[in-house]
Amino acid sequence: MKYQQLSDQIRSKSSYLCVGLDTDINKIPKHLLKEKDPIFEFNKQIIDATIDYAVAYKPNIAFYEALGIKGWESLQKTIEYLPKDVFTIADAKRGDIGNTSKMYAKAFFEQMKFDSITVAPYMGSDSVEPFLEFEDKWVILLALTSNEGGKDFQFEELKSGEKVYQKVLEVSKKWGTQENLMYVVGATRSEEFQQIRKAVPYHFLLVPGVGAQGGNLKELSKYGLNKNGGLLVNSSRGIIYASKGEDFAKVAREKAQTIQQEMKGYLEQFSEV
Amino acid sequence: MKYQQLSDQIRSKSSYLCVGLDTDINKIPKHLLKEKDPIFEFNKQIIDATIDYAVAYKPNIAFYEALGIKGWESLQKTIEYLPKDVFTIADAKRGDIGNTSKMYAKAFFEQMKFDSITVAPYMGSDSVEPFLEFEDKWVILLALTSNEGGKDFQFEELKSGEKVYQKVLEVSKKWGTQENLMYVVGATRSEEFQQIRKAVPYHFLLVPGVGAQGGNLKELSKYGLNKNGGLLVNSSRGIIYASKGEDFAKVAREKAQTIQQEMKGYLEQFSEV
Repeated sequence: MKYQQLSDQIRSKSSYLCVGLDTDINKIPKHLLKEKDPIFEFNKQIIDATIDYAVAYKPNIAFYEALGIKGWESLQKTIEYLPKDVFTIADAKRGDIGNTSKMYAKAFFEQMKFDSITVAPYMGSDSVEPFLEFEDKWVILLALTSNEGGKDFQFEELKSGEKVYQKVLEVSKKWGTQENLMYVVGATRSEEFQQIRKAVPYHFLLVPGVGAQGGNLKELSKYGLNKNGGLLVNSSRGIIYASKGEDFAKVAREKAQTIQQEMKGYLEQFSEV
Repeated sequence: MKYQQLSDQIRSKSSYLCVGLDTDINKIPKHLLKEKDPIFEFNKQIIDATIDYAVAYKPNIAFYEALGIKGWESLQKTIEYLPKDVFTIADAKRGDIGNTSKMYAKAFFEQMKFDSITVAPYMGSDSVEPFLEFEDKWVILLALTSNEGGKDFQFEELKSGEKVYQKVLEVSKKWGTQENLMYVVGATRSEEFQQIRKAVPYHFLLVPGVGAQGGNLKELSKYGLNKNGGLLVNSSRGIIYASKGEDFAKVAREKAQTIQQEMKGYLEQFSEV
């Protein structure tokens, strides 16, 4: 998918919601367990229920990998089921030496036809560049993560005065363009967001964790949105596990709609989309 | 596997060789393509040929993932085929927020019964700790990688005077012990190795790339070996693709034996194993 197409989707749906498909066999409603492929059946119903309010879907690859071959089958079916006009993210946090990253790129972009993949920056340029060579495919690079351990290294101050995550932004933005590179930004404070937007004003940012991981939608929209939208905000558990009963899809739809309505207001206030 | 068992294996085989199973369908001998599962057949013959000289095997997960479900089947068969007394490494470079890392740990330690997995440090403590909760299983954390891009962030100097990779060693060694935590150290200079051994004198180090990625076995053995061995040195392409003909397994055995003979000398010189 191209930058402009994603931006158009945000305008037409008045939403920058990404639904995280962290589908866990132990957490899905019990009545689905009699299905042949409960994981796919759950995803299918979640997608149908939320498609009017979401512009992106993000399967968390670990949840599928943990089930072995069956999990990969469920993932493959899910990615095939997703409509072509939504943006798809393989949340895989890969990154390895060049020829290995190339293999991962093939797995996610060619075998499974994801639009994008999350990538870890620690191994530097040649671990990321192989993912950037595919047309209309995207790298979403970890810059600032919202977990507690994110503070262990990302906030360390360098001799130059920059923090490690700021260095990651500054260096990596030369590897790609705003047309093929986004950033994971789990900023919890508005100053951080403002600084990040100074470093990468036009790039899309993927913000995890509205809901379970905390995070204030208004604040992050105020500082994160740019004139093209430029923001994808993920919610996983807050939508897909909002109800654990037979009404899970209906409740997921209501939750997604509530978030979308809030987003619509912020788009009018803070963006030109 | 326990520290002592691995150390015993090194002593009994006079070897700290790890064979990297970077098995690529486009690079294996053509006569194997008529087999039902050419990837597994290749691995099986490589394992049989090198088992006398290697103490560890390291499938590079990307190469299997790139083949989709069939690749995962080949990987599963490979891990089941490997004898229990060799140390097995899932070279996967995973790392994510807590509940996601836990899913990856289940996939590699429970579903596939690997002894260890390589993990990226960027997301910090809570991304690594879920892997450390499994008995007799290991995290091999990326500290210093030997690829060109490794220099982008790992060598950045912090205000404290430490380099980023040194900070990773200092902070992370408190998360586990030498009984469940190793480090990937692609050091190319002996001063780096000496500094690393000061920081983590007893931990095992996994050194990639004797062969294709360069690296001098004598130097790294001199500074890397400790009294328990404490070193695993990987060779992938230099062994498994040494011949592309029908004699590939025989030639792989010769290459492995040559490296093992060299290692035997260094163990006598630099270790008490």
